[in-house]
Amino acid sequence: MQLLQDRILKDGKVIGSNILKVDSFLNHQLDIALFNEIGKEFKRLFNGCEVTKILTIEASGIAIASITAQYFNNVPVIFAKKYIGINMDNENYEAEVFSFTKNKLYKIRVSKNYINSDDKVLIIDDFLANGRAILGLANAVRQAGAEVVGAGIVIEKGFQKGRGVVEKEGIRVESLAIIEKMDNGEILFKN
Amino acid sequence: MQLLQDRILKDGKVIGSNILKVDSFLNHQLDIALFNEIGKEFKRLFNGCEVTKILTIEASGIAIASITAQYFNNVPVIFAKKYIGINMDNENYEAEVFSFTKNKLYKIRVSKNYINSDDKVLIIDDFLANGRAILGLANAVRQAGAEVVGAGIVIEKGFQKGRGVVEKEGIRVESLAIIEKMDNGEILFKN
Repeated sequence: MQLLQDRILKDGKVIGSNILKVDSFLNHQLDIALFNEIGKEFKRLFNGCEVTKILTIEASGIAIASITAQYFNNVPVIFAKKYIGINMDNENYEAEVFSFTKNKLYKIRVSKNYINSDDKVLIIDDFLANGRAILGLANAVRQAGAEVVGAGIVIEKGFQKGRGVVEKEGIRVESLAIIEKMDNGEILFKN
Repeated sequence: MQLLQDRILKDGKVIGSNILKVDSFLNHQLDIALFNEIGKEFKRLFNGCEVTKILTIEASGIAIASITAQYFNNVPVIFAKKYIGINMDNENYEAEVFSFTKNKLYKIRVSKNYINSDDKVLIIDDFLANGRAILGLANAVRQAGAEVVGAGIVIEKGFQKGRGVVEKEGIRVESLAIIEKMDNGEILFKN
């Protein structure tokens, strides 16, 4: 997606050889017009998949998933929770996800009320790196007996093992920008 | 907002005299069509305020703020972070917020890059109860020398002290549904 690649080149900041800061438009300050273009592109890629729910994980995936849902007939968005509140259900699908950016193991939770065996679920997230978050979300979907139609990713770190790990589970991966390399502050996309 | 009140009556669950579970449409599973109506209503209420940024707090506020931004010329949305990641800025506006639903004191952070003294900031959140989150967000805005044009709240617990606390700071509060009482599982709205 050219618009996204251009934006990453313009506003992304590479730190070391592994961290890409895109918090000016993707995961702290959010460019809603860009998110609409992202949503349209996910619709084009997953058109005909009869998506009934969109699943993401707090916090960075929520806005992208919500804007994207508008292009899928406003299907419900569910975000997996990393943190427990007193207002949560007790009956949840649970999975463990290790976050490399927070260096922490999370138990993610999705209420059993909101995914059922008839659902065709599109998973959306901002980044694909090691694939742990996507596997955890897919695990929750499959516990419900539902189908994962695929994973829609905004930025894939193509030099990490996420895609292989996720595809090995039979999950289709569509990334809008795939970074092949980012050494010395320079970003090279896979085209 | 009648549509919202009807939905709360239909799908909200009262637990005890203080907890309202609305996770089927507001803060776990998200009804994006409803969020669009909420966004339109916030636009009607804050029309003419020349909003330049929308500020919210992770995680439940993000989707509402993002959909709402579409009715304010796609102004940038910023969500205050409760949890530190390695991809964060070091220069942040910080404020402390006590969460009653998580029974925890958070330090919230907003990068200094994304709010400046020219900004007119609309704060959006799903609930107003004790007002701590709104005060923390307003504190961050004011550290930036920017203006808080108001707080747009989806559901206000009118029987708690949030509105008084926030209005005392000179902040305009607009809530789309105000619950006056919710005893014995019954919800009574202030009209």
